[in-house]
Amino acid sequence: MTEPHLAPSGSGIPRTPVTREIYRNGMASLAAAVNVIASDGPGGRAGFTATAVTSVTDDPPTLLVCLNRTSSAAPAVMENKVVSVNALAPGHETVSSLFGGKTPMADRFAAARWKAGKTGAPLLEDALVSFDCEVTETVEVGTHFILMCRVVDVRGGDREQALVYFRRAYQAVSA
Amino acid sequence: MTEPHLAPSGSGIPRTPVTREIYRNGMASLAAAVNVIASDGPGGRAGFTATAVTSVTDDPPTLLVCLNRTSSAAPAVMENKVVSVNALAPGHETVSSLFGGKTPMADRFAAARWKAGKTGAPLLEDALVSFDCEVTETVEVGTHFILMCRVVDVRGGDREQALVYFRRAYQAVSA
Repeated sequence: MTEPHLAPSGSGIPRTPVTREIYRNGMASLAAAVNVIASDGPGGRAGFTATAVTSVTDDPPTLLVCLNRTSSAAPAVMENKVVSVNALAPGHETVSSLFGGKTPMADRFAAARWKAGKTGAPLLEDALVSFDCEVTETVEVGTHFILMCRVVDVRGGDREQALVYFRRAYQAVSA
Repeated sequence: MTEPHLAPSGSGIPRTPVTREIYRNGMASLAAAVNVIASDGPGGRAGFTATAVTSVTDDPPTLLVCLNRTSSAAPAVMENKVVSVNALAPGHETVSSLFGGKTPMADRFAAARWKAGKTGAPLLEDALVSFDCEVTETVEVGTHFILMCRVVDVRGGDREQALVYFRRAYQAVSA
């Protein structure tokens, strides 16, 4: 159960946030795995590229995904309430770009191979790792939804490298 | 303002989550930047290592940090309501280990150089990038707090590589 509450700043005087440009330039230095988030169900098939994915807790196994509320994938994801989180590997750059752009959903999915997960969400067949999830809670923060995702299945591949985004470019990371 | 709500699973029948071990093994393949989160104020100086950091929105500039509720740093962070997020670079492995272990807080901070940020949170002097933040909201999810952090300052260094954790080992990522 989510129990959010406002926490006024220590001084009680809100400080001015940085500009979007300064924030984005700073965030470009925060390396992050590149993932395709995919969903299917009554709301239709939809997916998007996200680096804003992180583990929350292993009790119960829960990760979070940030989703722009105006994203073309948002209505389907919110209706289906299931998602797969597919971590990408080098070679997936085109898939990443398609799911991160304005390409129609059918064309995005046609660019890769998928299999249905336990939840019904499509799993990317050659992902580095796929998490099959139910969206159990949603938190709204400004322009975005934060999706709390209970993990009901994990599928790992035999890929050896991760695809990471750092300073506005794709990088390969080896174990 | 946070507006969380429960979103029952599509089928109405909750599926069984994976075991912690399966989840943790899957998460080991999700590459992530390594950060030290530092705080200071009425609750005292405290810090911890976190890979569970991601951008939420740039309007207003907001990132999130996941914090174990039983962490030794949690009481101070929750009282101070300010944090710095310091992305690490290769060479920071010892600092990462100290802030991720059971070392007393004073000894953790003695292992590196710091300067006070606008919020009063200590900024790591040679970080890849530092975000100086006010904690504006907190969401409880199971064992963890999710801290919503408004960014009031960004300090970048001239470091060229990021320190990333992938498959339970540190890796260097170049731009």
